[in-house]
Amino acid sequence: MFKKLLIIGCGLIGSSVLRASISKKISKKIFIYEKSKKNISKIKKINSKIMIIKKLDKVISDIDLVLISTPMSQYEKIIPHLNSFLGKKSIITDVGSTKESVLKLKNKKLNKHLDWISSHPISGSEVSGPEFGTKNLFLNKWCIVLKDKNKGKLKKIISFWKKLGSNVILMNPSDHDKIFALTSHLPHLIAYNLIKTAQDFQKKQKKNIIKYSAGGLRDFSRIAASNEIMWRDIFFNNKKNMINAIDMFIVNLNSFKKNIKNSEDKNLRKKMINSKKVRKQIINLKQDVAKPDFGRE
Amino acid sequence: MFKKLLIIGCGLIGSSVLRASISKKISKKIFIYEKSKKNISKIKKINSKIMIIKKLDKVISDIDLVLISTPMSQYEKIIPHLNSFLGKKSIITDVGSTKESVLKLKNKKLNKHLDWISSHPISGSEVSGPEFGTKNLFLNKWCIVLKDKNKGKLKKIISFWKKLGSNVILMNPSDHDKIFALTSHLPHLIAYNLIKTAQDFQKKQKKNIIKYSAGGLRDFSRIAASNEIMWRDIFFNNKKNMINAIDMFIVNLNSFKKNIKNSEDKNLRKKMINSKKVRKQIINLKQDVAKPDFGRE
Repeated sequence: MFKKLLIIGCGLIGSSVLRASISKKISKKIFIYEKSKKNISKIKKINSKIMIIKKLDKVISDIDLVLISTPMSQYEKIIPHLNSFLGKKSIITDVGSTKESVLKLKNKKLNKHLDWISSHPISGSEVSGPEFGTKNLFLNKWCIVLKDKNKGKLKKIISFWKKLGSNVILMNPSDHDKIFALTSHLPHLIAYNLIKTAQDFQKKQKKNIIKYSAGGLRDFSRIAASNEIMWRDIFFNNKKNMINAIDMFIVNLNSFKKNIKNSEDKNLRKKMINSKKVRKQIINLKQDVAKPDFGRE
Repeated sequence: MFKKLLIIGCGLIGSSVLRASISKKISKKIFIYEKSKKNISKIKKINSKIMIIKKLDKVISDIDLVLISTPMSQYEKIIPHLNSFLGKKSIITDVGSTKESVLKLKNKKLNKHLDWISSHPISGSEVSGPEFGTKNLFLNKWCIVLKDKNKGKLKKIISFWKKLGSNVILMNPSDHDKIFALTSHLPHLIAYNLIKTAQDFQKKQKKNIIKYSAGGLRDFSRIAASNEIMWRDIFFNNKKNMINAIDMFIVNLNSFKKNIKNSEDKNLRKKMINSKKVRKQIINLKQDVAKPDFGRE
């Protein structure tokens, strides 16, 4: 499909793209740029033919596809390098979980003759690092690709993710960020917040509650163990929608509190019965899995 | 172990006690009192020797153990019947998820010569009904038993749950209700609230977000599909601790919101890194499972 693929940042997602690309013969040559020495030694074990590059400068020419899979806060530092060595032919994509911020950065910093078509594969894990990557990470998962004027290159990006096993959906950045604020970013923040609240309670009451976490808390702790750099970047980059989502959440929570305080049976039950509809929709849309994994593998 | 066991209310938990009791030969005879005709026909299929009773009045004498596994809001109606036909020898227990309210009701309504030693097996599911019960529901799960002055009967209750496979912990009702407000009741309310918020967003934005629920929302929907009668009873019966927990949760969420709004990198990351400690504690305490199931089977 490609002659030269460059993966910048090779953690969980990058190494999964790497593994899937090898397996699906996506590219004749695959170059990896990765800062962490520890990660590099792990990546070398995946396949001996991978070319690790030490600088993002003029080392390689004629890259077909650059995939950026670093934390989003690194993008700004990477762009000047892309400007310096990429040609018109190349396509850039990334796997960041917010899109308006990426588009803004691209418009501001990327050379006008370069094409960056942003992607967001809906897959991940609470674990991070190349040792946890798998070639099946994208299999039958959604991958959001941003709409783009360059139809030829857009087609290539779509076909790239499809070969990796994804179901591709085109979106505009504003819709993407609104939707994922609710379906992914807020749930993660809520999990972090629940664990923080449990910790505060434990400190205040001097009771070991973790022992009894099986009643519900345990499974929130899994999601709250996600990578803090990645999630900080997501929360900061989707600020407007996050604040809006938090506000909506607090309004609803205060309403539940009022229902409980005043024993408002009918209102409380109505909401609880309604929430079952969402579960049914999820099952009908075949989005449910036997093993709940927070969209993770 | 017993000659006569009576199970009042035979849904998920009651039918699991029934199945486990048959399997472990807990009682020579097992009587079931269940209101729902649909459930009765399902229960009859479990074992032909089960005796279904149609009234809770003087039908059977010399019951060794009465297990109440109805929604907690039914307890008040059941107690006068217990007063009318139980003798001094009998032990009463229940499986309700809050304990201060049960104790209060018992002190107010139960005949003084009767003994009710309250239990709370930490197991359940988002599904309900006797068809989902299993004899292994309590296996290696905690079962909280309330401390009691009657050491002989307490010993029998402990030994009953141990035979069903549980790890028994003694607690006082106040500690129980505080701890489970944080480890179970608040997580459930938060899941309901998240789904409500997603539904509000969907209505307002006219976007189908359920399709993308794999990013996190999906697994909250599972917990928010739990039985609304059971959870209404829990929220109402643990009112004081629920309100306190919700308040703590909102304080923390506002703090996260402030961190995000003002890009407070250090504070935000500190909290996220700290929450990983809880995950480590859970793993160290062997409370983690391969399949996250919200304490359910």
